[in-house]
Amino acid sequence: MKQDDRNRRQEEQTSPAGMSDVETALKELRNKIDAVDEAVVELLAERQKVVDRVVALKKAHNLPVRHPAREEDLISKRRQQGAASELDPDFIEDIYRTIIRRSRVEQASSMAGKSVRPGAKVLIVGGEGRMGRYFRRCFVDADYEVRSLDRNDWWDVDRLCREIDLAILSVPIEQTEAIAVRLGPHLPAEAVLSDMTSLKAMPLAAMMTAHSGPVVGLHPLFGPTTSTLDKQIIVAAPGRRSSDCQWLLDQFISWGAIVMTADAREHDEIMDIVQALRHFATFAFGRFLSQKQIRLSRSLEFSSPIYRLELGMVGRLFAQDPSLYCEIILASSQRRALLKDYVASMNENLEMIEKGDKTRFQEEFMKIADWFGAFSDQAMRESTYLINKLIERF
Amino acid sequence: MKQDDRNRRQEEQTSPAGMSDVETALKELRNKIDAVDEAVVELLAERQKVVDRVVALKKAHNLPVRHPAREEDLISKRRQQGAASELDPDFIEDIYRTIIRRSRVEQASSMAGKSVRPGAKVLIVGGEGRMGRYFRRCFVDADYEVRSLDRNDWWDVDRLCREIDLAILSVPIEQTEAIAVRLGPHLPAEAVLSDMTSLKAMPLAAMMTAHSGPVVGLHPLFGPTTSTLDKQIIVAAPGRRSSDCQWLLDQFISWGAIVMTADAREHDEIMDIVQALRHFATFAFGRFLSQKQIRLSRSLEFSSPIYRLELGMVGRLFAQDPSLYCEIILASSQRRALLKDYVASMNENLEMIEKGDKTRFQEEFMKIADWFGAFSDQAMRESTYLINKLIERF
Repeated sequence: MKQDDRNRRQEEQTSPAGMSDVETALKELRNKIDAVDEAVVELLAERQKVVDRVVALKKAHNLPVRHPAREEDLISKRRQQGAASELDPDFIEDIYRTIIRRSRVEQASSMAGKSVRPGAKVLIVGGEGRMGRYFRRCFVDADYEVRSLDRNDWWDVDRLCREIDLAILSVPIEQTEAIAVRLGPHLPAEAVLSDMTSLKAMPLAAMMTAHSGPVVGLHPLFGPTTSTLDKQIIVAAPGRRSSDCQWLLDQFISWGAIVMTADAREHDEIMDIVQALRHFATFAFGRFLSQKQIRLSRSLEFSSPIYRLELGMVGRLFAQDPSLYCEIILASSQRRALLKDYVASMNENLEMIEKGDKTRFQEEFMKIADWFGAFSDQAMRESTYLINKLIERF
Repeated sequence: MKQDDRNRRQEEQTSPAGMSDVETALKELRNKIDAVDEAVVELLAERQKVVDRVVALKKAHNLPVRHPAREEDLISKRRQQGAASELDPDFIEDIYRTIIRRSRVEQASSMAGKSVRPGAKVLIVGGEGRMGRYFRRCFVDADYEVRSLDRNDWWDVDRLCREIDLAILSVPIEQTEAIAVRLGPHLPAEAVLSDMTSLKAMPLAAMMTAHSGPVVGLHPLFGPTTSTLDKQIIVAAPGRRSSDCQWLLDQFISWGAIVMTADAREHDEIMDIVQALRHFATFAFGRFLSQKQIRLSRSLEFSSPIYRLELGMVGRLFAQDPSLYCEIILASSQRRALLKDYVASMNENLEMIEKGDKTRFQEEFMKIADWFGAFSDQAMRESTYLINKLIERF
């Protein structure tokens, strides 16, 4: 009887009287939507053309690409217009953040050819590595004279160093010190010496000893697969004669990067957590999944977007270069000590797990939640936004 | 001298000859962009009105909200038009995924009042809890007669159960069995008995014993803060007389949810990983951060979007209900055994860390990467997309 009800209702859905009228009406409305959408894309193309003219003008007059106040003003105007038209302002903001970023990335890439110090000579040590090649291309595109010194080029080091304005060490952590020492004597006195190592205290000290001219340590917080420097972070640890190193930082800024200045030691402490601990935890989790032979794809079918996102973070690690992560995770004795503490802390949970001690779990949970404080709510907002993006897309 | 160059260049940037002309030209171009943007938002408002008419039509004729083929067709038309207008098709797709999802969510919420079995009587056991209240609202909005049975209402259980078509247990895991037993004798023979527990084998067995009528176990993979059921996953573990339970699943589908059917035991195995292990790992990581008194906000200033995202996942956990996570993590002896294995596996890394054994690290890494296989690349793509969204927004 209930089953009959259901069958009847389904029949009504597939062939009610007048269905062809409904289909016609739907088709007309869909055609209207298509016409609106076509007009929207036309307008976006028109917008692009105007943005191109803005870029040309900025380029000709050395004006910066980014104009945060203008961006926020634009967003807030569109939000207001949306609200007045019964559109959700958050929805409109969402659309416009996408449009603005696109426009900013295109401006930055069009400005990439703009050099802060045109014709300056740049030597990339380790220029055949992945990061080395990445930055070579950036500097070449910006009209620098770029040279590469890799392991087989040391016989030619004097010619390669002649009259250079900048040498960047883009080599594995454990070679940085030795290479700085080896390069130092060949550098012009006024050349800036810099590096791209993910630690800063040791490489900076090595560079300061090896070279008496301007020194600045850099740590780009992105990999060689990054398509644009837009809003990517580079940490700069000042060494010597900062004002003479400033043009290099300005060059990164003009490519769209954000340069954060930090003391080398503070940088290393933070990176112990941000890089070594986080990557190790991810590594160890992935290792356990593989030990247990978890059926990944089946687990994804039965899971919330947040799990998909978390598992994605784990999978992402293993799509990348093992030697890079090895260097980061095992970089220093301080890091290794931190990882040991982490494993020790993990073991402290065993008793609670064995006993299924819910009271203790909740007590611990609330203490930790207190410690996270306001960050938790912010994290909730940001991750919820991203989860919605994930649902939209995949 | 170099410093002078830099000063001169900066001066040119701030007050070159003819700056007012440039400013005027920029202002004109910006006004053009504003005019285009205003027209875009107008079109989006117009689109919204047409979509509203589509919804009204679908509603009147019982047609489904989602039409995946139409969505893909629409996207591909806009991509083509974009490419022809020198716009990046991915950019256009990005914008249109946002527009389409918005439209789908609005349609689903407008259809939420549409009942699969209008006037049916629904009893929510644990109706004062957070999930209980959430589903009460869903059923009330869809014109069901909804009753709530919470801990203080058992004296009235016979009246509350009278002629109900459906009873849903929305109670903590450890009470599910007892409550099923207590409720069973009061249920009409033909009523569907269901639950919302995050385990399925034990609750399903308890419900099957307690009630001789139709039984289906459910596990909604989302929390009570979810604003829309659009594309949210609900796992259904069939118990008895599935066809008589189908209307309940149809109701969730009509609210936009995706119903995945699974054997109760398979569900529980997968959730050991997806929920218990993942949440425990996150808990343990957060615990360590708090033990080490990491300066969260400073670490965020110096970090890549991926770290922000990962730290956000940790913070997110601690913004939520401790008892919920406690129940999930410590739910069964099988889960607790898995967590012990995880801690044991974590300890296996100690020797490698102590020795700084890079060879072993890379060997392990590559073995795990092999095991992840193609999933890693997919994870890389998806997470890169999200990282870009994060950069756009925050």
